[in-house]
Amino acid sequence: MAAGNGPRAAPRRERFEHPSRQPPRRAERGAARCRHLGGGRKWGKRGAVGRRAEERLLQPGCSAVARDFNSFVMRTNTCGELRSAHVGQEVTLYGWVQYQRQGLFLVLRDFQGLTQVIIPQDEAHSRVKKLLSDAPAESVVRVTGIVSHRPPGQENPKMPTGDIEVKVETAEILNSCKKLPFEIKDFIKKSETLRMQYRYLDLRSFQLQYNLRLRSQMVMRMREYLCNLHGFVDVETPTLFKRTPGGAKEFLVPSREAGKFYSLPQSPQQFKQLLMVGGLDRYFQVARCYRDEGSRPDRQPEFTQIDIEMSFVDQAGIQRLIEGLLQYSWPEERGSIATPFPSMTYEEALAAYGTDKPDTRFGMKIVDISEFLQRLDIQFVQNALSYPRGTVKAIRIPQGMRYLKNKDLESLKESAKSQFNQEIMEIICRPDGSLKSLLTKFLDEKQQSELIQALNMQVDDVVLLAAGEHKQVCSALGSLRLETANLLEAAGLVLRDPTAFHFLWVVDFPLFLPKEENPTELESAHHPFTAPHPSDTSLLYSDPTKVRSQHYDLVLNGSEVGGGSIRIHSAEQQRFVLEKVLKENSEVLSHLLEALDFGAPPHGGIALGLDRLISLIVDAPSIRDVIAFPKSFRGRDLMGNAPDYVTPEELEPYHIQVSWPLADKEAKKN
Amino acid sequence: MAAGNGPRAAPRRERFEHPSRQPPRRAERGAARCRHLGGGRKWGKRGAVGRRAEERLLQPGCSAVARDFNSFVMRTNTCGELRSAHVGQEVTLYGWVQYQRQGLFLVLRDFQGLTQVIIPQDEAHSRVKKLLSDAPAESVVRVTGIVSHRPPGQENPKMPTGDIEVKVETAEILNSCKKLPFEIKDFIKKSETLRMQYRYLDLRSFQLQYNLRLRSQMVMRMREYLCNLHGFVDVETPTLFKRTPGGAKEFLVPSREAGKFYSLPQSPQQFKQLLMVGGLDRYFQVARCYRDEGSRPDRQPEFTQIDIEMSFVDQAGIQRLIEGLLQYSWPEERGSIATPFPSMTYEEALAAYGTDKPDTRFGMKIVDISEFLQRLDIQFVQNALSYPRGTVKAIRIPQGMRYLKNKDLESLKESAKSQFNQEIMEIICRPDGSLKSLLTKFLDEKQQSELIQALNMQVDDVVLLAAGEHKQVCSALGSLRLETANLLEAAGLVLRDPTAFHFLWVVDFPLFLPKEENPTELESAHHPFTAPHPSDTSLLYSDPTKVRSQHYDLVLNGSEVGGGSIRIHSAEQQRFVLEKVLKENSEVLSHLLEALDFGAPPHGGIALGLDRLISLIVDAPSIRDVIAFPKSFRGRDLMGNAPDYVTPEELEPYHIQVSWPLADKEAKKN
Repeated sequence: MAAGNGPRAAPRRERFEHPSRQPPRRAERGAARCRHLGGGRKWGKRGAVGRRAEERLLQPGCSAVARDFNSFVMRTNTCGELRSAHVGQEVTLYGWVQYQRQGLFLVLRDFQGLTQVIIPQDEAHSRVKKLLSDAPAESVVRVTGIVSHRPPGQENPKMPTGDIEVKVETAEILNSCKKLPFEIKDFIKKSETLRMQYRYLDLRSFQLQYNLRLRSQMVMRMREYLCNLHGFVDVETPTLFKRTPGGAKEFLVPSREAGKFYSLPQSPQQFKQLLMVGGLDRYFQVARCYRDEGSRPDRQPEFTQIDIEMSFVDQAGIQRLIEGLLQYSWPEERGSIATPFPSMTYEEALAAYGTDKPDTRFGMKIVDISEFLQRLDIQFVQNALSYPRGTVKAIRIPQGMRYLKNKDLESLKESAKSQFNQEIMEIICRPDGSLKSLLTKFLDEKQQSELIQALNMQVDDVVLLAAGEHKQVCSALGSLRLETANLLEAAGLVLRDPTAFHFLWVVDFPLFLPKEENPTELESAHHPFTAPHPSDTSLLYSDPTKVRSQHYDLVLNGSEVGGGSIRIHSAEQQRFVLEKVLKENSEVLSHLLEALDFGAPPHGGIALGLDRLISLIVDAPSIRDVIAFPKSFRGRDLMGNAPDYVTPEELEPYHIQVSWPLADKEAKKN
Repeated sequence: MAAGNGPRAAPRRERFEHPSRQPPRRAERGAARCRHLGGGRKWGKRGAVGRRAEERLLQPGCSAVARDFNSFVMRTNTCGELRSAHVGQEVTLYGWVQYQRQGLFLVLRDFQGLTQVIIPQDEAHSRVKKLLSDAPAESVVRVTGIVSHRPPGQENPKMPTGDIEVKVETAEILNSCKKLPFEIKDFIKKSETLRMQYRYLDLRSFQLQYNLRLRSQMVMRMREYLCNLHGFVDVETPTLFKRTPGGAKEFLVPSREAGKFYSLPQSPQQFKQLLMVGGLDRYFQVARCYRDEGSRPDRQPEFTQIDIEMSFVDQAGIQRLIEGLLQYSWPEERGSIATPFPSMTYEEALAAYGTDKPDTRFGMKIVDISEFLQRLDIQFVQNALSYPRGTVKAIRIPQGMRYLKNKDLESLKESAKSQFNQEIMEIICRPDGSLKSLLTKFLDEKQQSELIQALNMQVDDVVLLAAGEHKQVCSALGSLRLETANLLEAAGLVLRDPTAFHFLWVVDFPLFLPKEENPTELESAHHPFTAPHPSDTSLLYSDPTKVRSQHYDLVLNGSEVGGGSIRIHSAEQQRFVLEKVLKENSEVLSHLLEALDFGAPPHGGIALGLDRLISLIVDAPSIRDVIAFPKSFRGRDLMGNAPDYVTPEELEPYHIQVSWPLADKEAKKN
């Protein structure tokens, strides 16, 4: 912080300056929903949240209640609150020493901001002067003093409290800080391991305070929308349940009954359906969920979803609900979002973007040129088209030659080969408008010109072309589209507007997919409770592979942020799916099947991935940045050192013992 | 339900009657916050919640927003909504068949109420008639029809929709209900095991719907108070953490690292303190907590607490916060609560009520008569008084002779003997005003009259007297006080006003207690992070047994509903407590001690037991009645059958195996 202030001419009354910030964007429109620490950490591309805080903290939404941050405590004000209007008042502030300069002044920090505090220099205050001059940075202090105007010319317009300073009368060191392992302002430069080990210090940073407060407020707004406006009931469901069939990713919890285990569920799916059978009508929960995936980057063993279920609803009803929910809870400083969100079928998404979670912030869509090419006698094209669902497709990279190097193109082709086993052919539009490609030798001039037209190519454009089976070709090109976007942006092209939020519904997923390990068997594309598409119900009994589902995904900027479905409410249909289609033992779900028999209403729901959603909104590089105490990618808590060893005695009540891997056993022997 | 209707004269237009209900109480004052199922289950002493629902559903608190229960779905109205004003409208209702009578009418139910539906009898509607006449009870149906006045004289003033009926035009059976294992209306009579097995059916009952909705709304109000009015931040903390020292009641979760386990914490204690060190200032969470206590009645392995922590706060600050929180969120139909709550020290509570959670709804306080009796030469009295903290105390049971039988008195005395090893002597005031007691032979007439005065005895009063060590005597008499209250109420005396809510703060607990297994060692009375009372800080280093703490409990009607403390924020003091007083290895808490060294602010907090609080408010016999899917007292989910066996293969990734008890092993062999 201090580092950014540069050399000072007048140390007696230095101006406290915030590090330069990007200019405020849409933020200006609304009242400040969150005050900021004056820290200067930058974050992601959209990090410009450190604008001047508004004078009043308005409670957004149904009422304009000001939050009282000073209730129940002895401070008169927070460190972000004092303005010219307070001049002359005696105030008591509590906070952390941001820095102290030459026994003359210090800057006090709390969650809401910074206040410059003038240390008295006269003899009568010698004790106070010594106290404050000796206090190490990050010590916790109380100061009481008089709010004064800063001397003319010393005001700091970049600092919300920059018009005033507090002349200290009395002070108290509440807790002196030991030498830190590093300075807070350098935190962002430190390894993430170190930051997670000292998470409580990282939490003092502007960005984490902002992220956690935005998260809290957005969830609160969601609750208001669901609970107060639309009559949803917040119901807590158990997290100690039993293993679902095939629930390989569920943590186990040993019970005191020998051999019996609880399981931490991946979602409240069964419970929320049972609540509908119980006539609750409208349920929601901000639900803690668990998934044991071992080590996976940017996944957390515990995560949170906004879990919703409704009776007597159809797909459109859930979609409108979610659109209203997000619109209502959307942080004002992130602009507004338009509803209804656009919608796309799974097949359309695959064909145009090569994925079921298209990033629609930019073009470069996949184009089908099979029809154009099939007229030509090109061997590899004819080969590809002779297969079932054979196709030739392409993406066009506008100005690709200006932004991509040869090695970029090579790496794109290699990536398609290694990840999708897909050959890629490139077509380049030379400055003279001619094409450079292995393909050109098969094309006469007219055909080349037709191809240029079909692909809408301009000078310096690059086209990546792939031939083969539809899904493979689309997936490969969809992946290249994203890789290319990263390369273009790394080269300086702004392709994805960092302030844009593109929501998209993806619908009409297949209900079943062939199992990867045995393609003659089917598995649920999402989960076995998903209802078939009303138009495809009869196909369920004749050709289940062709059945579309009533599943819907919500995609934001190319990330899946939610998914849900209308559920099967007929016990007979549910039994058929489980037993005849999926060939599963329905015994373990007998309670659910029985419930469907006893007056289950038609129902459906959705779950939003809260961690992911918030991380996209604040443009954080990882979901770890929107979680107070995240685990490392190996699932460890680096601060408290969890998981940890326990004694055999502690395992005894649970009737389990550790089966040490051989290597460990040997090591223990020696 | 139907059973209460009695024989009918005019089956064509039967009146639908609700079972008799207790008259509305304080409920009348406020707007209806919750509509009711029309079920007639009674519940506890304060069960009279089934009053007539108000026309408008007001959102209590900051705004008067009406909840829209019909958004996003195809119904036009709920089954509790239609009134005379709707007559002539075409409506579409969805609900469950409550009952159907002779193909003439049926009563449709949803979460909000009941509507009488007239089945058309004309030829044109023969299909609809057949459909509805054949629908078994609890089937789910849609009906569309015209709202009509009931014929004069057929109105049912006890039913909110009792002025109207709906003449069906079209109908649809959405799900036919199989024969139920019992009728919903008989549910309350069934065993709890059966009710928990078919929990989703029990959830359709009026009472459970009411309990869950009240819970949801009260928590929502708490959130508004904390988040919107007082700037608290809702932060989710991990539930996969590591075992705390001595955390014998913590569930273990095996990880994929051999021998290493997570632990499900009993509270977010460490995390909330670390959030304060992280400068979050004001934290709250509706936190899921876990406690493995094996089989204990009315405990749940997972439970919920309103978890709160603040920086720069003192004990009074937390108390005022909680009083404001409860007052703001208190359900209107339960009357209002006065603040501030009364406060009592631990020593006062023990002396007057024999417990640290006094039920102050009634008198019968413990009276100390040592001073009076020590003047007399009675052997057992002198014996008792010769011990350190020796005492003679008594409780007076007003009108005890009228309400208690001899066997009641005997059982009280036996109970004191068996539970507390405490002899009890009774004193009875005869109709002529004379005393009957073993004590009288030691007393002359004047002394007898002085005793009557000292004990404030009236004719027919019974006094129970105990001599011995202070704490034992108080505990025994405190327990007898509650047992006596139960006996008196069983005999018809109303002692505890069922509509009264007596909150009480109990403060100044001892900081340490002698360990039960080894009284020369000390353990924390609450937890090792509790700060000493400011007046007793120096005693910490000289005589820790005498130190009072800054812990406070919140008691409601004799149940502990919350507890908290100001925490130690000095690393040095925390280390002293852990290492020197508690003789614990502070290594496992090194991250917390380190955090205190790096600028921890003074802080404190509290946790309210939500399940218990709600169960007291709705007067439910058990916390299971305010939890959607509770576990049995053995910790089992009887609906889904959890915990359950898993295969050895499923245990493999976690490097554990089951140690089968010998009996099981033998059984498996044979």
